[in-house]
Amino acid sequence: VVSRLPAVGTTIFTVMSRMAQECGAINLSQGYPDFNAGDVLFERVAHWMRAGHNQYPPMAGVAVLREAIARKIETLYGTAYDVDSEITVTAGATQALFTAVAALVHPGDEVIVFEPVYDSYAPAIELQGGKVVRLRLAAPDYRPDWAAVAAAISPRTRMIMINSPHNPTATVWTADDMAQLAALTRDTGIVVVSDEVYEHIVFDGARHESCARHPELAARSLIVSSFGKTYHITGWKVGYVAAPRELMAEFRKVHQFNVFTVNTPVQYALADYMADPGRHLGLAAFYQAKRDFFRAALAASRFELLPSRGTYFQLARYAAISERPDTAFCEYLTREVGVAAIPVSAFFADGHDDRVVRFCFAKNEDTLARACERLQRV
Amino acid sequence: VVSRLPAVGTTIFTVMSRMAQECGAINLSQGYPDFNAGDVLFERVAHWMRAGHNQYPPMAGVAVLREAIARKIETLYGTAYDVDSEITVTAGATQALFTAVAALVHPGDEVIVFEPVYDSYAPAIELQGGKVVRLRLAAPDYRPDWAAVAAAISPRTRMIMINSPHNPTATVWTADDMAQLAALTRDTGIVVVSDEVYEHIVFDGARHESCARHPELAARSLIVSSFGKTYHITGWKVGYVAAPRELMAEFRKVHQFNVFTVNTPVQYALADYMADPGRHLGLAAFYQAKRDFFRAALAASRFELLPSRGTYFQLARYAAISERPDTAFCEYLTREVGVAAIPVSAFFADGHDDRVVRFCFAKNEDTLARACERLQRV
Ligand SMILES: CSCCC(=O)C(=O)O
Ligand SMILES: CSCCC(=O)C(=O)O
Repeated sequence: VVSRLPAVGTTIFTVMSRMAQECGAINLSQGYPDFNAGDVLFERVAHWMRAGHNQYPPMAGVAVLREAIARKIETLYGTAYDVDSEITVTAGATQALFTAVAALVHPGDEVIVFEPVYDSYAPAIELQGGKVVRLRLAAPDYRPDWAAVAAAISPRTRMIMINSPHNPTATVWTADDMAQLAALTRDTGIVVVSDEVYEHIVFDGARHESCARHPELAARSLIVSSFGKTYHITGWKVGYVAAPRELMAEFRKVHQFNVFTVNTPVQYALADYMADPGRHLGLAAFYQAKRDFFRAALAASRFELLPSRGTYFQLARYAAISERPDTAFCEYLTREVGVAAIPVSAFFADGHDDRVVRFCFAKNEDTLARACERLQRV
Repeated sequence: VVSRLPAVGTTIFTVMSRMAQECGAINLSQGYPDFNAGDVLFERVAHWMRAGHNQYPPMAGVAVLREAIARKIETLYGTAYDVDSEITVTAGATQALFTAVAALVHPGDEVIVFEPVYDSYAPAIELQGGKVVRLRLAAPDYRPDWAAVAAAISPRTRMIMINSPHNPTATVWTADDMAQLAALTRDTGIVVVSDEVYEHIVFDGARHESCARHPELAARSLIVSSFGKTYHITGWKVGYVAAPRELMAEFRKVHQFNVFTVNTPVQYALADYMADPGRHLGLAAFYQAKRDFFRAALAASRFELLPSRGTYFQLARYAAISERPDTAFCEYLTREVGVAAIPVSAFFADGHDDRVVRFCFAKNEDTLARACERLQRV
């Protein structure tokens, strides 16, 4: 078999979670919480199953969920999306990103991504014959360099994929960043794919700069988000896309032949659950407390903590502890210290290594406390 | 926006279901039951949600479900698949088919399909730059012509996509068909993608010729199936792929960046539910009774019923009733008669029209009776 993705192996998340399990390490590698959504959500799923809503929903998702999503976006960010033609429910954000690329990137098109980059972006682009143009975010700030973006844009640039709050760096783009992006893509035909799955996890009173806050950008963007991070159900695999009608029409052409649609009773239950905006509005404070607890516990360690302005991740530089490459250091942390983390080099195509690892602090306090106790001894 | 799939519109299933709803017609178009899985299945989902299994499962699916799938396949068809490396749970069969094509079809490769063909196959192939080679199954028998298959195979043939029991024709391939397919693909490097979602719905004592019954074929096949048709949960969107390790490795490279994985509590619940083989073994008799009821009720009508040997579909020729094209006839049936059906021309790229429509009989007897009463008057 001639591989279409010869460079792809097992994702770093699977590798590290498996190693953590083998060693009985506390798993702060793969990003997922060790706590649950409220029972109310489970009750609603059970309700809709028993009520007999178990057959194909409409291709774009059940209407009440699309309405709830549109309402949330308009309330928080100001852009009104048409429920019928501009919102589609997806089998998670990853499927939304993959489908957006498949629907819009033609062979030979260039797609700009920012490194460190989430590991699904580049293979999705390469599979469609697109060319990945990587712009590096430099440690320790990992801020975009807009002059470099301007220089990277060519007549072949078809798409720019952005992600704020950013996994793995925990940076958050500003309104000025969005203005720069809008200016640079004006009248270019470039489509922006905006991965906003951590939209509700922004700290210290900063606000999430959704593309939907910036009408000019929104007009050429596919906004991707997910319920996994927001409701502590990463294993349910439900996300959505919001985009202007013309872009959404192309998205749906591929979507309908990829997954076609998404679990019916789960969609109805999520629509019910969204009725209480407190559930997403309370998330930032909830995670900020965890971030502060985690950082305070590690303040006395030999790790240098980088800023965490959003997401449920914390980067830590270990240059003062070890000279090892970050993959070796993460293996050491997992096997010897008993805490699994993600080597940030895994998010660079060339394995660029800032001697930085990523911890996930979406854990109960006692999990975090036990992990920090171990990490303090390093 | 330059479309990557310029020919694709809304699927015929969505179009007809929408029309049925608008007109209040009995919907025998899109294939889904109007009854439910047992409450036991819903209880199991509720159990696993409450038990806190709501985060990412392993990429390939939860182990207990992969084990149950491998056990079923080995018991029924004789091939033993390795649970770790040869079974993957998918977000429905459609996603499995799309992903198989994306993983294995290179630009310029040819893929043979049999027309009438399920509507997702060709766009999946075209999106990857593959060339769709269509072999026509001729009414009223819709049997494969193996001489034509032999003639269609070229050095560029990369894949053959098959589907038995067949949607929409309700034909079932024989052991001899599988032997012919095995002989023609021997030593060619051609991969077989076998869509077996109706595997448990085969009538009159015939048996389902899974590729997994034919070891030589199984060695070059990706077998795709789904829980939607088997457990009356078409809206849950869970399916799976079984394939030899080398093919599965390529499948997973794309799968992990497409949907990554599938709803965790639903996977656990399905594993529980599979523990009783009666649930899938009883399906053929269950649907045969419906088929017989439906055919008996239409025997006195002016429709000519073609054989239905498997699936939950019944083809009917209406040449004695009307000269209209089948799309117009289906619109008439929906709007004037009050019964929605699918025009079989929708499964042909060139709109070839045998004056045949497809009814779905996966309905309660009273639904079928009401529909037949209307159809008898036509
Ligand atoms: C899809 S598994 C990875 C989860 C995640 O988003 C992360 O850890 O970065
Ligand atoms: C994906 S909706 C179509 C359901 C189906 O398989 C059919 O009606 O043929």
